[in-house]
Amino acid sequence: MIKTCMENVRKNTPLIHNITNYVTVNDVANILLACGGSPIMADDEAEVEEITAICGGLNINIGTLNTRTVTSMFRAGKKAYSLYHPIILDPVGAGASELRTKTALDLISNIKFTVIRGNISEIKVLASGTGGAKGVDADISDKITDCTLNSTIEFAKDFSKKTGAVIAISGATDIICNGSLAYVVRNGHPIMSKITGSGCMLTALTAAYITANKDNILEAAASATIAMGVCGELAYEKLCETGGGNITFRNNLIDSIYNLDGNTLERRAKYEIY
Amino acid sequence: MIKTCMENVRKNTPLIHNITNYVTVNDVANILLACGGSPIMADDEAEVEEITAICGGLNINIGTLNTRTVTSMFRAGKKAYSLYHPIILDPVGAGASELRTKTALDLISNIKFTVIRGNISEIKVLASGTGGAKGVDADISDKITDCTLNSTIEFAKDFSKKTGAVIAISGATDIICNGSLAYVVRNGHPIMSKITGSGCMLTALTAAYITANKDNILEAAASATIAMGVCGELAYEKLCETGGGNITFRNNLIDSIYNLDGNTLERRAKYEIY
Amino acid sequence: MIKTCMENVRKNTPLIHNITNYVTVNDVANILLACGGSPIMADDEAEVEEITAICGGLNINIGTLNTRTVTSMFRAGKKAYSLYHPIILDPVGAGASELRTKTALDLISNIKFTVIRGNISEIKVLASGTGGAKGVDADISDKITDCTLNSTIEFAKDFSKKTGAVIAISGATDIICNGSLAYVVRNGHPIMSKITGSGCMLTALTAAYITANKDNILEAAASATIAMGVCGELAYEKLCETGGGNITFRNNLIDSIYNLDGNTLERRAKYEIY
Repeated sequence: MIKTCMENVRKNTPLIHNITNYVTVNDVANILLACGGSPIMADDEAEVEEITAICGGLNINIGTLNTRTVTSMFRAGKKAYSLYHPIILDPVGAGASELRTKTALDLISNIKFTVIRGNISEIKVLASGTGGAKGVDADISDKITDCTLNSTIEFAKDFSKKTGAVIAISGATDIICNGSLAYVVRNGHPIMSKITGSGCMLTALTAAYITANKDNILEAAASATIAMGVCGELAYEKLCETGGGNITFRNNLIDSIYNLDGNTLERRAKYEIY
Repeated sequence: MIKTCMENVRKNTPLIHNITNYVTVNDVANILLACGGSPIMADDEAEVEEITAICGGLNINIGTLNTRTVTSMFRAGKKAYSLYHPIILDPVGAGASELRTKTALDLISNIKFTVIRGNISEIKVLASGTGGAKGVDADISDKITDCTLNSTIEFAKDFSKKTGAVIAISGATDIICNGSLAYVVRNGHPIMSKITGSGCMLTALTAAYITANKDNILEAAASATIAMGVCGELAYEKLCETGGGNITFRNNLIDSIYNLDGNTLERRAKYEIY
Repeated sequence: MIKTCMENVRKNTPLIHNITNYVTVNDVANILLACGGSPIMADDEAEVEEITAICGGLNINIGTLNTRTVTSMFRAGKKAYSLYHPIILDPVGAGASELRTKTALDLISNIKFTVIRGNISEIKVLASGTGGAKGVDADISDKITDCTLNSTIEFAKDFSKKTGAVIAISGATDIICNGSLAYVVRNGHPIMSKITGSGCMLTALTAAYITANKDNILEAAASATIAMGVCGELAYEKLCETGGGNITFRNNLIDSIYNLDGNTLERRAKYEIY
């Protein structure tokens, strides 16, 4: 299943429209190419509807949002929805400022997202409708542990029922669920938090996976998370062999997505279904 | 000749003003440094005329254009023209949205570009004054083949006559021509389409080459395309040796421009003149 | 002392708010992570005060300033100052356009910066209140030599007295001083000028160092410059071993910051105090 989701990306070359931040945009474009997709970046109000119309999926990331691009997010989102395109939201830093919190909440009120992907703090802010994250990283107090896993799964399923979106919570342990079923993924490596863009790249990867697997959104989103986690492990193993630091790791990570084969992905996948 | 064009870049250190997209801007800056040039990025209306005045050449790339930067493109373009600076246009995604098509057409109507460089679909859109590209990549139906080479050369020469610009069409086979003479370049490697920014980097490289070789625009533009193609081959060969994916290829590509020597360039150049 | 400054960054994980240019922003984020800090990029007027309030330090870089972000710089700067946060200014290209010169001068008139870091030409423009740089690189005529070292130190000390900021002048020889004491640093390698972002990365690194060493601003700023220089040397040595060009050097540089240990830093540091 995971392997099929991955291979469908290479087969279908999903074209993804990205309205995303300028920090990690180059990595986002390159990981989309690495997985077999194709990226377009366009954020001007005057063109986002046309651009999204020629694409297969839409990726909205509020990492460096501003007044101009927020308007474009709404217009692109509404257009993409009218065309039945998969739409993903990455609410980067929701809770860190009122602008981010409000924008993310307005977006999920007005646009039916296919997937919402963030860290646990961001997702909690969206679910509670308010919040105070400490930045763009998850609060330590929100960390998913064995003790809180079950309650977090229930929380995520509830939020999925409320929004109609698959919810993808990323961290040391990842949860990807719809209203009834949850994948708990245990791939990845702590060094992934030592580069910028791990989250943004995963969101873009998920956009490609769900666009290439439109009838299988939950599995596609889980597969993207697993692929990112497995490639994080492969990239770290390569780093140990050759030496280097966080930039070498980042390069290895995108390279690993580029070279990933389905059998390795299946074999290394660590997940349970709840 | 190619070698001389290349060496003139290192000798003259052309300072290039770039109004370009935020996706590939870092690669653009680094490839300009790699070839021996020097980049400045500035896109605010209030400063583009002054900035372009202290530079030797201007690179306009509409990859993530917006209302604010489009105005700057016109102001910078007019100023650069008044100073006899070489000016290059990369009409990224022309045909993909009315904003892009119209902006590119308005730019070529109002500014006399020295070189216009794009993929075949983008150039066709500009030449016909209308169009529908499928995204930022060339349409498969537009691909240059042995059967269509002659007619594409004629088309490009006509467009050059109409605009007064050297036309550079990039793809598996590249055509660089003025109204009477065409270079057909067969260097490069398919993996170049698996990274973001191949086109943007080539445009920037061409900006450096034409600015350092103002009396030899056609040859300079052809040399830049050949240099990019040869370095694509070198980068791919290194990738095969060391392993890695598209990011390693991107790194190798810029590194190869940095280390390129004129004799290798001459020896590996594959081109015909029509 | 240098070692302690460095280790305090890893211990305290300073959260840095960056309003910076889109050319080198990814490198800036990754070098902040590499040194043990944590980056947030946010530039919309509506959120910069809130974002800066949850951070420990503020980094303002005018590399691709525009009307929208200039307003944000002032708002963030005033808020950060009211919270006693360290604030650093990188006046990229001051002197190259009136917009840059005026913005940088207005910023230092209205905000009390903790550190101002630039190349010698940029700092001279700020000190004289006018100027004409040739671009974003230092003018050759401004280069610090043995003959001009003493006068440049005096100039920098005077400018520090006038602004109340530690002044950090970067080049082949670096000067970091307050009104009475100057560090002259002789680490680094000429290849650092062959990548984009050496300066921006140093500014961000300095932001992390001063935020993690608030009671020791001069030493922290000098330590950041020494760390960057030492890592430039290490990165170049690795480049000689493995081959590659300017991109490999850039990657090695950030990796070296990631892997830097305090004893190597102390041992390789080359500086005098005046």
